[in-house]
Amino acid sequence: MNEADLKKLLKDLTWQEKVGQLIQLSGDFFSSEEALAVGPKQKLGITQETVDLAGSVLNVAGAKKTREIQEKWLQKSRHKIPLLFMADIVYGYRTVFPIPLGLGATWNPDLIKQAYRVTAAEAKASGVHVTFAPMVDLVRDARWGRCLESTGEDTTLNAAFARAMVTGLQHVELGKITGIAACVKHFAAYGAAEGGREYNTVDMSERRLREDYLPGYKAAVEAGSELVMTSFNTYDGIPVTGNEFLLKQILRDEWGFDGVIISDYAAVLELVAHGIAADEKEATLLAMNATNDIDMKTGCYAKQLEPLVREGKLDSKRIDDAVWRVLKLKNKLGLFEDPYRGASSEREQEMLLTEENRNLAYQVAAQSIVLLENKNHTLPLAKNHQKILLVGPYGDNQNLIGLWAIHGNTSDVITIKEAISQHVSSEQFHYTAGCEMLSDYRFLGEFGGSKDQLMRMPQAKREQALAEALRQGEKADVIIYAMGEHTMQSGEAGSRADITLPDVQKEFIQEMLALGKTNILITISGRPLVLTEEAKQMDAILQAWFPGTEGGRVLADILFGKINPSGRLSMSFPYSVGQLPIYYNGFQTGRPLNSKTHSGRFVSKYLDSPNAPLYPFGYGLSYSYVELSDLALDDVEMTEKLQVSVQVKNNSSRSVLETVQLYVQDIVGSVVRPNRELKKFKKINLEAQESATVHFTLTREDLYYYTKNMDFSVEAGDFNVFVGRNSRDTLQASFTLK
Amino acid sequence: MNEADLKKLLKDLTWQEKVGQLIQLSGDFFSSEEALAVGPKQKLGITQETVDLAGSVLNVAGAKKTREIQEKWLQKSRHKIPLLFMADIVYGYRTVFPIPLGLGATWNPDLIKQAYRVTAAEAKASGVHVTFAPMVDLVRDARWGRCLESTGEDTTLNAAFARAMVTGLQHVELGKITGIAACVKHFAAYGAAEGGREYNTVDMSERRLREDYLPGYKAAVEAGSELVMTSFNTYDGIPVTGNEFLLKQILRDEWGFDGVIISDYAAVLELVAHGIAADEKEATLLAMNATNDIDMKTGCYAKQLEPLVREGKLDSKRIDDAVWRVLKLKNKLGLFEDPYRGASSEREQEMLLTEENRNLAYQVAAQSIVLLENKNHTLPLAKNHQKILLVGPYGDNQNLIGLWAIHGNTSDVITIKEAISQHVSSEQFHYTAGCEMLSDYRFLGEFGGSKDQLMRMPQAKREQALAEALRQGEKADVIIYAMGEHTMQSGEAGSRADITLPDVQKEFIQEMLALGKTNILITISGRPLVLTEEAKQMDAILQAWFPGTEGGRVLADILFGKINPSGRLSMSFPYSVGQLPIYYNGFQTGRPLNSKTHSGRFVSKYLDSPNAPLYPFGYGLSYSYVELSDLALDDVEMTEKLQVSVQVKNNSSRSVLETVQLYVQDIVGSVVRPNRELKKFKKINLEAQESATVHFTLTREDLYYYTKNMDFSVEAGDFNVFVGRNSRDTLQASFTLK
Repeated sequence: MNEADLKKLLKDLTWQEKVGQLIQLSGDFFSSEEALAVGPKQKLGITQETVDLAGSVLNVAGAKKTREIQEKWLQKSRHKIPLLFMADIVYGYRTVFPIPLGLGATWNPDLIKQAYRVTAAEAKASGVHVTFAPMVDLVRDARWGRCLESTGEDTTLNAAFARAMVTGLQHVELGKITGIAACVKHFAAYGAAEGGREYNTVDMSERRLREDYLPGYKAAVEAGSELVMTSFNTYDGIPVTGNEFLLKQILRDEWGFDGVIISDYAAVLELVAHGIAADEKEATLLAMNATNDIDMKTGCYAKQLEPLVREGKLDSKRIDDAVWRVLKLKNKLGLFEDPYRGASSEREQEMLLTEENRNLAYQVAAQSIVLLENKNHTLPLAKNHQKILLVGPYGDNQNLIGLWAIHGNTSDVITIKEAISQHVSSEQFHYTAGCEMLSDYRFLGEFGGSKDQLMRMPQAKREQALAEALRQGEKADVIIYAMGEHTMQSGEAGSRADITLPDVQKEFIQEMLALGKTNILITISGRPLVLTEEAKQMDAILQAWFPGTEGGRVLADILFGKINPSGRLSMSFPYSVGQLPIYYNGFQTGRPLNSKTHSGRFVSKYLDSPNAPLYPFGYGLSYSYVELSDLALDDVEMTEKLQVSVQVKNNSSRSVLETVQLYVQDIVGSVVRPNRELKKFKKINLEAQESATVHFTLTREDLYYYTKNMDFSVEAGDFNVFVGRNSRDTLQASFTLK
Repeated sequence: MNEADLKKLLKDLTWQEKVGQLIQLSGDFFSSEEALAVGPKQKLGITQETVDLAGSVLNVAGAKKTREIQEKWLQKSRHKIPLLFMADIVYGYRTVFPIPLGLGATWNPDLIKQAYRVTAAEAKASGVHVTFAPMVDLVRDARWGRCLESTGEDTTLNAAFARAMVTGLQHVELGKITGIAACVKHFAAYGAAEGGREYNTVDMSERRLREDYLPGYKAAVEAGSELVMTSFNTYDGIPVTGNEFLLKQILRDEWGFDGVIISDYAAVLELVAHGIAADEKEATLLAMNATNDIDMKTGCYAKQLEPLVREGKLDSKRIDDAVWRVLKLKNKLGLFEDPYRGASSEREQEMLLTEENRNLAYQVAAQSIVLLENKNHTLPLAKNHQKILLVGPYGDNQNLIGLWAIHGNTSDVITIKEAISQHVSSEQFHYTAGCEMLSDYRFLGEFGGSKDQLMRMPQAKREQALAEALRQGEKADVIIYAMGEHTMQSGEAGSRADITLPDVQKEFIQEMLALGKTNILITISGRPLVLTEEAKQMDAILQAWFPGTEGGRVLADILFGKINPSGRLSMSFPYSVGQLPIYYNGFQTGRPLNSKTHSGRFVSKYLDSPNAPLYPFGYGLSYSYVELSDLALDDVEMTEKLQVSVQVKNNSSRSVLETVQLYVQDIVGSVVRPNRELKKFKKINLEAQESATVHFTLTREDLYYYTKNMDFSVEAGDFNVFVGRNSRDTLQASFTLK
């Protein structure tokens, strides 16, 4: 539709029709059995008229269902403005990729762009128009369950992934969205919930907000993300959905974002619970004044916009602006031309979980899994030279896709057991569960439908399971432990105060270690766990996240050396929960641990814990030893740019993917600068024994930061450059910025 | 000296003499053996001339020594401007009171004012002129070791103690300081070190700073604190010692503070380590521009002020301003009339550790100790009806005064064992250590001189000690465990990532519990420990802090009912370290735990831990059951003030001190308001079975806060009033502010 027609359409809408465009309801309101929608309507206090005029639908997918709803709705609709179908498609639709914390570990935005393009293509075939992704919240506290959805703790890396994901999802060609629209979330700083406790208060300086937390969202907006979702948290004492500073000043005015802002689930109404609005009407006014366009899943906009305008409290132009943005989005998606955007059951058949898609999921998982320990070259295993016992609740478990893969099927997943059995003979390989997932049943009620995953065992069976594992372990050379968190222990509202492996698994491991075999741990988790004990006890550790549909196959291929692991952590693995929050790029203190002027007690540290995490940002091993040397700068001074080069040598007889990371430290600033900050990275392939030179161009712009007066600029002076395979082990050089 | 003479004196000073007034050096520079001062001088890069002109001395006390230094110095001095002697006298001089976290637990600022008056009188007799107290840093994270020095997590309570301490210390009569000058510290927000790690970065919004963190310092300044000490941390990316916003804008301009600002130990030079100054010269310029007057213990001012003025980078008026403040302080203290301020060995003899002072320390300790558990009226113990065994590293240990009582003598302390033995016959009472203080020797090197306090035992002796305790425990009815942290595990640079009792003590307790006796735990600690396991296992728990000189006697008197315990926590005791930071007055989230709109998983919580601490702010038991009832407001509306009353009834046959606490919740604000905030409290005495009515007057001013636009004002609307014996268990009423 051309813009003139679209404007005419806006003009033709009645008051109620306009309001309808700003309301999003979930699928149950559009049930083909009308009776089923009565309860939900009563709960929100809205009428059938509101449902009939609502502009978008939440979390309905599948071609058959979306087409049915759209068709029926369009029949009733006066102007035939198609419904927008929005859904949580965060790391894959039917083909499930690793959780985003695993995607972050690939350090490969180009690959992830492909993954999101495939995801968009699958979702589009099923009738989805908008996904609530990418999630780009910076995370520094592993207690928070939604670390799962983030690519990690670093601004530069998150921004790179944000761009890749938005571009991949929307796949714009000739100005048209050929994929699905992206909705970057959760704006802003949701990842900084105090104490890592879900939905908790966020408090920080504007400096930290702009420097560390905003760049990810900004990158997504600059990459063209059509929508932005508000976050649940407060910022500066004001919940974001009603926060004019964040939404209006920064997002709209400074960044020029003119797409749709949508509240997170029920967040408009939650302004009342927060105590910033007395009732639905005040909540509506605050959200509208902050330029939030769509109200997700509450009755606030439906009931309160009309009286607010009538009473002169809200300018009706604000409503027109919001509706205009929604109509523009629908038009950009081509919905007026084809309200189904080609979705059909046939198209689903053709597009979903293809061999090609599975293959991409395999490649992504292969690059996401991080080898944390590998003492004495324990891995890879030699085929059929060792008797292998696989144990643990994830050994023969299809639940490798994690909490938020709501359109994926666990039945598509090949288990670790199945995958290993394709590598070795049945004489050499055995499996027994050995222990439960969890023994603590306090949360069972809340775990809802997935009680089975606990594999609850009565006491007798528990003892029997252990006895069997010990019996089989006796005969084995190698024991592989497939352990980890229950899917419900991470993700939204999955905050934990203790982030070690579940007790029952730790106890089981202790029993098994007494056998004195070679021990290999695979950890499935939605967050960095505290693995301090396991790091000492295990011969090898593979951090596998929730690796997705192809995760089992990838793990087996890593174990037997078909894949050379290349994942690098994008979030620090803490030494203990008492160290949180932790991140690699903290400020230099006045009394650093390595201080020359202070020694002994009076330096910044814990008495009983190192300052450093167990595994730092950027860390990961491979089966090859890659040596970095000869860090060189093309000049000792920089005006506009500087060339940095480093020699990289694969000292092994297998090919390897290595991630070369470049960090910078601004030694003296008008504001304290981080110890080091990631500025550049390159993931390169090196054949056996291959050497290469890796080049980086460092520009003046790379050194910009928010100076004392909050100017985003740069200050002349000395800088250190660190290049290495992780944030800790680096070569060093320095230059002076003129 | 009159002001005109003082001004003339300032004018007469040479450049070097002026700079000298801005320098503070430690006692070793003034050693009577000149050779001993060579090393310190070389370390700072200063000459004997600087030492000869230095204006103040750090941490030298004792009449003999201070008189000697002063006398010798004045002989050399051209203008006879006396030296200022400043020292860390934080919770007692020779007579040691409980650590400030214990003082906070008294909820009795009037009593603490007396304690600080006595402290000042003792210190003055020993030649001290200024103490680096009160420390009023708000604390929300028990990992931080300096919780020890704070009165706790609440703004109102901290401000009340700040006023009491300053008034008590300075004891101004007819405009003259008859006590010693106070130096409030650490300005500002040092208690918010990230992760509870000492000296770590502080980051927060200006709103949180002004609302929660500043009022304590402001109260001290308003009470007349002569000095302010800068803190080590950054605020908004800038270390406080060079932070113009905090020092110049807020402290000088907004609060009108014209006293002396002194840097914390070496903090001027640390601007270099922070990376905000390239060298000593830049550091000096930043500190001077921020209006920091005295440079504690670095060579920066001594070496750099002259070149900075010469090069035109620093206005010499800035130096005159600083010197003028120092001279005014010396004059206010009467040093020009009597450079010794009456200090003498005779005066010490007369003033230090008098019976009266010890008695006051006894009273303060009595009100500071908190009864956390008392199942089935375990306490008080009936004399000689039960066989009592005392165990634990603090059972017969004089180290009850804590880390920062540097002028106290442990030899003045009566141990718990000794004190108990005065209550019961030797047949009925036995003591054996049973276990060591610590078994982890990793920190030994850093613990310096107090290795003995570890009571290190070789393996054989350890087993023998346990066996002996078990043998004696068998025969006992009641086992009292005197456990806790080593003094070096708290205080400055005493951050811990694990805040439970030391492992060796926990293990010992487990062994003893198997005996099935009545178990009473006394915890000596510089912070809230995690006592979640002990709360289940013990029949009674007494939180004793480091209770000071009279602590042993008080504990015994509580055990046997001579004292009815009345302490109330001024800092939350966390359920686990994974809950930190934790405090009672957090913001309401959009999805509170008790939400009506959200249920099950999707509320703000941890999956594996309560949101609430183990023991909340304001909590404490007594041997009496005091009932609160009939909360009444004199009106349902407030314009300027409101009368609140509550009935209080002592349902016991012994007299009791009860602390009645009044909290307010502003239900809807333009900014999210805390769940509840302490506004008023009264500590009252109730005789056996006595009833009383407690009245509070709540004023409009009590409801002020920083509204959306950062105006400190009040907004009309509904408020809840909560009155109770702690922050959790309260009666409720409400009113509307017009």
